[in-house]
Amino acid sequence: MIDRYALPPVRAIWTERAQYERWLEVECAVVAAWEELGAAPAGTADRIRRAAVIDVDDIHAIEATVDHDVIAFITSTTHAMGDEARFFHLGMTSSDVVDTALGLALKQSGQLLLQQLDTLRGVLADQAVRYRGTVVVGRTHGIHAEPTSFGLKFLSWLAETERNQERLAHATEGVACGKISGAVGNYANIDPRVEQIALGRLGLAASKCSTQIVPRDQHAEFVAALALVGAQVERMATEIRHLQRTEVREAQEPFKPGQRGSSAMPHKKNPILCERLCGMARLLRGYVTAAYEDVALWHERDISHSSVERVILPDAVMMTYYMLDRVTWLMEGLIVDADRMETNFAVSHNLVFSQRVMLALVGRGMSREDAYTLVQGLALAAWEHGADFRTLCAAEARIGALLPPAELEALFEPQYYLRNIGPVYARFGLDKTKEEQS
Amino acid sequence: MIDRYALPPVRAIWTERAQYERWLEVECAVVAAWEELGAAPAGTADRIRRAAVIDVDDIHAIEATVDHDVIAFITSTTHAMGDEARFFHLGMTSSDVVDTALGLALKQSGQLLLQQLDTLRGVLADQAVRYRGTVVVGRTHGIHAEPTSFGLKFLSWLAETERNQERLAHATEGVACGKISGAVGNYANIDPRVEQIALGRLGLAASKCSTQIVPRDQHAEFVAALALVGAQVERMATEIRHLQRTEVREAQEPFKPGQRGSSAMPHKKNPILCERLCGMARLLRGYVTAAYEDVALWHERDISHSSVERVILPDAVMMTYYMLDRVTWLMEGLIVDADRMETNFAVSHNLVFSQRVMLALVGRGMSREDAYTLVQGLALAAWEHGADFRTLCAAEARIGALLPPAELEALFEPQYYLRNIGPVYARFGLDKTKEEQS
Amino acid sequence: MIDRYALPPVRAIWTERAQYERWLEVECAVVAAWEELGAAPAGTADRIRRAAVIDVDDIHAIEATVDHDVIAFITSTTHAMGDEARFFHLGMTSSDVVDTALGLALKQSGQLLLQQLDTLRGVLADQAVRYRGTVVVGRTHGIHAEPTSFGLKFLSWLAETERNQERLAHATEGVACGKISGAVGNYANIDPRVEQIALGRLGLAASKCSTQIVPRDQHAEFVAALALVGAQVERMATEIRHLQRTEVREAQEPFKPGQRGSSAMPHKKNPILCERLCGMARLLRGYVTAAYEDVALWHERDISHSSVERVILPDAVMMTYYMLDRVTWLMEGLIVDADRMETNFAVSHNLVFSQRVMLALVGRGMSREDAYTLVQGLALAAWEHGADFRTLCAAEARIGALLPPAELEALFEPQYYLRNIGPVYARFGLDKTKEEQS
Amino acid sequence: MIDRYALPPVRAIWTERAQYERWLEVECAVVAAWEELGAAPAGTADRIRRAAVIDVDDIHAIEATVDHDVIAFITSTTHAMGDEARFFHLGMTSSDVVDTALGLALKQSGQLLLQQLDTLRGVLADQAVRYRGTVVVGRTHGIHAEPTSFGLKFLSWLAETERNQERLAHATEGVACGKISGAVGNYANIDPRVEQIALGRLGLAASKCSTQIVPRDQHAEFVAALALVGAQVERMATEIRHLQRTEVREAQEPFKPGQRGSSAMPHKKNPILCERLCGMARLLRGYVTAAYEDVALWHERDISHSSVERVILPDAVMMTYYMLDRVTWLMEGLIVDADRMETNFAVSHNLVFSQRVMLALVGRGMSREDAYTLVQGLALAAWEHGADFRTLCAAEARIGALLPPAELEALFEPQYYLRNIGPVYARFGLDKTKEEQS
Repeated sequence: MIDRYALPPVRAIWTERAQYERWLEVECAVVAAWEELGAAPAGTADRIRRAAVIDVDDIHAIEATVDHDVIAFITSTTHAMGDEARFFHLGMTSSDVVDTALGLALKQSGQLLLQQLDTLRGVLADQAVRYRGTVVVGRTHGIHAEPTSFGLKFLSWLAETERNQERLAHATEGVACGKISGAVGNYANIDPRVEQIALGRLGLAASKCSTQIVPRDQHAEFVAALALVGAQVERMATEIRHLQRTEVREAQEPFKPGQRGSSAMPHKKNPILCERLCGMARLLRGYVTAAYEDVALWHERDISHSSVERVILPDAVMMTYYMLDRVTWLMEGLIVDADRMETNFAVSHNLVFSQRVMLALVGRGMSREDAYTLVQGLALAAWEHGADFRTLCAAEARIGALLPPAELEALFEPQYYLRNIGPVYARFGLDKTKEEQS
Repeated sequence: MIDRYALPPVRAIWTERAQYERWLEVECAVVAAWEELGAAPAGTADRIRRAAVIDVDDIHAIEATVDHDVIAFITSTTHAMGDEARFFHLGMTSSDVVDTALGLALKQSGQLLLQQLDTLRGVLADQAVRYRGTVVVGRTHGIHAEPTSFGLKFLSWLAETERNQERLAHATEGVACGKISGAVGNYANIDPRVEQIALGRLGLAASKCSTQIVPRDQHAEFVAALALVGAQVERMATEIRHLQRTEVREAQEPFKPGQRGSSAMPHKKNPILCERLCGMARLLRGYVTAAYEDVALWHERDISHSSVERVILPDAVMMTYYMLDRVTWLMEGLIVDADRMETNFAVSHNLVFSQRVMLALVGRGMSREDAYTLVQGLALAAWEHGADFRTLCAAEARIGALLPPAELEALFEPQYYLRNIGPVYARFGLDKTKEEQS
Repeated sequence: MIDRYALPPVRAIWTERAQYERWLEVECAVVAAWEELGAAPAGTADRIRRAAVIDVDDIHAIEATVDHDVIAFITSTTHAMGDEARFFHLGMTSSDVVDTALGLALKQSGQLLLQQLDTLRGVLADQAVRYRGTVVVGRTHGIHAEPTSFGLKFLSWLAETERNQERLAHATEGVACGKISGAVGNYANIDPRVEQIALGRLGLAASKCSTQIVPRDQHAEFVAALALVGAQVERMATEIRHLQRTEVREAQEPFKPGQRGSSAMPHKKNPILCERLCGMARLLRGYVTAAYEDVALWHERDISHSSVERVILPDAVMMTYYMLDRVTWLMEGLIVDADRMETNFAVSHNLVFSQRVMLALVGRGMSREDAYTLVQGLALAAWEHGADFRTLCAAEARIGALLPPAELEALFEPQYYLRNIGPVYARFGLDKTKEEQS
Repeated sequence: MIDRYALPPVRAIWTERAQYERWLEVECAVVAAWEELGAAPAGTADRIRRAAVIDVDDIHAIEATVDHDVIAFITSTTHAMGDEARFFHLGMTSSDVVDTALGLALKQSGQLLLQQLDTLRGVLADQAVRYRGTVVVGRTHGIHAEPTSFGLKFLSWLAETERNQERLAHATEGVACGKISGAVGNYANIDPRVEQIALGRLGLAASKCSTQIVPRDQHAEFVAALALVGAQVERMATEIRHLQRTEVREAQEPFKPGQRGSSAMPHKKNPILCERLCGMARLLRGYVTAAYEDVALWHERDISHSSVERVILPDAVMMTYYMLDRVTWLMEGLIVDADRMETNFAVSHNLVFSQRVMLALVGRGMSREDAYTLVQGLALAAWEHGADFRTLCAAEARIGALLPPAELEALFEPQYYLRNIGPVYARFGLDKTKEEQS
């Protein structure tokens, strides 16, 4: 991943040194298993861990000769070891080390991302509550539809976050998995109990049925889950991009600390973070196809998945981490212009209330057909001449005859449209809010 | 979907008539909810259902005029209704009907596919047990690696099937979902209890927070789950394609009933079903990207997902159904040539046993270095001159000195490599097999 | 392709009957080649064509028995033939017929699509000229940037259309290709001159080096070209979706003939066609991946591409045809509100002109720093208080001192920003327009 | 791109320093244009270039404050400049610099890749000629079909290389493009002649109609062309993977210099390079979707494409470069086992010749039906009992009666199947080869 999108916590997982440290961790866990099974003297694993030295340059130097990364790693790492070295990598094949270590990296990555999703969830819940009573025009097809609560937008994203937490948790559980089962997965040269003990120590599940490697449908699920997180971020970012349009201006990206708001073109606040996030969602989608193509490996394994994974696993993790980090910051600091939301109803001349006026007239005894014809006429007049529908209604005698001014006015109260959202909030345990209590 | 891949059970779900029937089912469930809430007289829902007539041609005729499918449906369906018609579609918006009905179709589709996965699971378990003791050369990178159990291949697919069952069950649960929440999802004109009651009757969950529609991340998950099923089928089909190669011939697609095996070119049994399945997996992968792009709709909904879903939802379901139907048939009837598996060890001159010979020599006291050098020399000779490694070993005095003929011979026993697979079978509850008892 | 998106001209290409007719056309061309080479009596091809009968049901009935579509076709078609039947399919393999016939279908499809692109090109050129002098605010990041010509939008799409014409023409040339080269492409049983003559008669190129089939990179290029056409349509449709937003309303989709504009919610003109087109672009993108995966077939051919192509070739062609048909209608009938474009400058308080005011002050001798500070102050005031920047400038003494009212006013003339677009139009041969002449 | 796949020539293009150097190159070309138009004193461009200093760290330091990369670049680079600095970036917007510089990077990248394709073309032509007379069994569906020339495989790849050269040349021409047309592409603040002169100096075309940027369909075409190159490499690599299988062993990857062939498992030569290349083709495919999604930017531009391009443009270029570098090495050094190719006919018991025997019998007067029945019987016997079809024919009296031993033997001559490949070679100008002359 390019530097600008690689944030420290996940970047640290995917360095070459960190990979060798995981390899060592796996090797030591296996030695500990041999110890537990009585095949190695007590204390061997500890002695090995103390004696092991990870020297990335040395590994590179050896690899240049032997052209095999695991052999280079073993040679270099066990260099200063004494007799214990013979228990190092005992009975193992390279894939046992490499694939199990990958499980560690993915588990750690998944957990970090899950923490982020949880933080995002909290921010979204807060904002949903905060903006519960803020009315905004609901839009379908980009066209004004009916008034709604601005908080509901956050609630909808919150629900999606919860679903993505569930998906990512499942996918992470799937890849938090290793295998110490030999060259073709049948434990031909190693006791199955070694795998059980070693993976237990590492906090990984054992692949229920491995080949030379852990089957790749689990990695595909993991990447697909990340891309779905990306799609959620894209959805949120797209909404903000729309709300930040010059013509809408109901919300905008927060300022970065130190960023100066003033310039000769103060209207030119571009939602560049949101645009960047949308681009990243595309990248993640592209990785899914590649990950899916990795499933159908040949026989007990071919290594075609490896070049794919070297690129997309760190990239997808780092990109998703970056996206969640930024979108959380965005959601938390979102600049909301509630006044603007209110005045924007006028853009469609308060026509979003037309149906309610019609129903009120029917309620007062006007026939449905008459009411429809009357309201339709006023609505068309408002639309064509850019007049305010509310004003036209107030001036219409046939309406005044049935609805006194105060009652008519009340029909244009957007809050009416929020009267049923309580149960929705309640589904998220957000029912006992200050807003509702007051 | 083109006819040849559209099998009856799923095809029936996706006809236009079936869609209107689901629409009617949703409308009736809502009327029943109104009834339950006292807003409609008892028996209204029943009367409506009896009076409702679905006439596809008539709907088309009306749609040609009004250019709105739901209005055309309502007009046509309620044509012969009496006064009850006023409770039909009461308080609803088109999306309430259409999206909820889609939930019904997807739930039904998911369930059919889950049944198929379960059938496949059973077939794979049977074959895993059946071929547990059948030795085949394990191959990595397409190259002979170590002997293994042919049954393990089925077991590996079985494990993947179980994972896909879990994924598809989760995804189906996600799309088995509806919404009766109005134009922007805030129940502005409808009591939230109507949704609760109606969806309960329909056997669907309510979207935890809908916009005008059910959020599309769930449909994306569903399509992604189908494509992962497709990837599994591709993996199985790829294996059979390899095994059916003229040079390998360890397994082949079953004959279709009535298919004649004889011709002037009897070797030309082409794995065309497996190839077809591989192609289909590609199609399913392509649908995933489109489904993911559908997530980020504008504001409370735009309808760009609709043209995508009209094509990919039925196509993905029908394709996956076809694939599972065919791959189950394939797996069940797979023609296996165990003799050929045995003789194929000779293709690599029995060199897959070389490591075991070396370890045996070390076990008898030869130094590791000497053993390696000796075995390596024989292995190279076998490889370069196309000689049998076993024969060369038997003729080598330094080996004979340590390993009597019978003991040497035993080292070339492929069954040795299966001695540890019991625990793997046990993980699937397949440990108490006839094979193991005997 | 589902009915609603399958328009007659391309649908006709992809019926089963049309396919058999192409097969017959290929067979006859080959017979004619034999004739030309003296291997068949003069007139054989003509007699065969007259005697050949295509009976789809009969072909199906035979296929049910022989399980081979080409054999069923030959059997059925030659049924009523006399002795000439022995020259039918002489020396050919199935793929010679099927793949060459596919070349015919793709050539015809490509040509129809190229005609559509040409029509679109013409419509876009007309609109570019028509709206050349219409000023609209240019937007970057969805934010007002600088005034520009509405015609330039069409010109940009026109340029993209030209590029897509070039790409599709190249791709069509690539797939307008056949092969009569036998089972593995080496003419083992057929004279290479037969291919040359037959394909010449069919108006197809010969694959420069075929395997059993025409290599699939050409089909991949074709699908990729269609998806790029789709992306162009998506770009145009996205623009209209934005312009049709309630808050923008600068343009909107045309009414369909007979469509009634009136309703109680006249503002609710939804850009559903544009949304539909955006969805279709996603579908086309998904097909690209599948088509690319078809390239790496095994050895001299495997048939995994076939199931992919049965679905995506007709679907991609029909979808692209539909999209071009609709977007041309859209572009031609686009409802443009030039007044609204003019008044929308006020949404950003005429701040898009701020830079020009600053430069004018510098031109009159104010220091750059002073000018910047002054303009910036007014701009901020306009933005924060929702005041008109032009009015604020007019009221500012330091500006009045340098710029008389008329000169100041002239700075807010959007037409200024169009003064350099002539050369752009000239690149398209659109320089001698009425607008420019007047 | 990760280090291991980033080869020096292309890596050098995509460093941050190289990017700034291109930015400077663009700025200088624009100054030179001003000079040419008389708006800057003679020699300004030269003086600016000499005075400009690119200091990446300094740019970073400034960017940390101003949060704008182009401003940071200008500030830093012009630091040591005198009065000329006022002509630096004169009349330009950031995108003019950035997008034009990207055009330079892509042009250079495309040219390097085209050179590689040309080298590959040469290697493939040599190998096609070299192996023209080498007979190998042609395989369809992985099953033996008919004998063919091993050289034809190279020729097929050669044809695909030529097509990809054409595609990449076109795509490179498309992206070798810049724009100096201002914030919304209408030259509002800059003379169109500046663009013309500056781009001419840079060796780039001017975008025929730019927005704020060069339209992205051209970048999409470029990425799609790279992915199609990737698909070709995948096709070649897949073939070698198949040929290197233990059971086939007709070809294998070359040894790396210094790589030792000996080990205790000499048969374990894994085609890991080919597998790696197959994985990379998947990655490239995934980039296509993202690049296509970048086409439909909002209005005169949004910046969502930028995060996509920061990742995929360098990655796709470097990956393709790596793939071409390696596959050329692979093709050039491919280890071919012609003996094995010959003996592999025996794997299908010489049944690939059965049709020819049948035709010979018909030629000698046996009825087609009798010939078919006779040959079919022998073929089945050969297949079922693993006997050699040639031997069975030789022992069959009814055959001996018509075909003397020598004539029968001649029918099993694979070279017969190559007799018509001359014209194919001739299409590539490869007809006058030593092989053919002798």
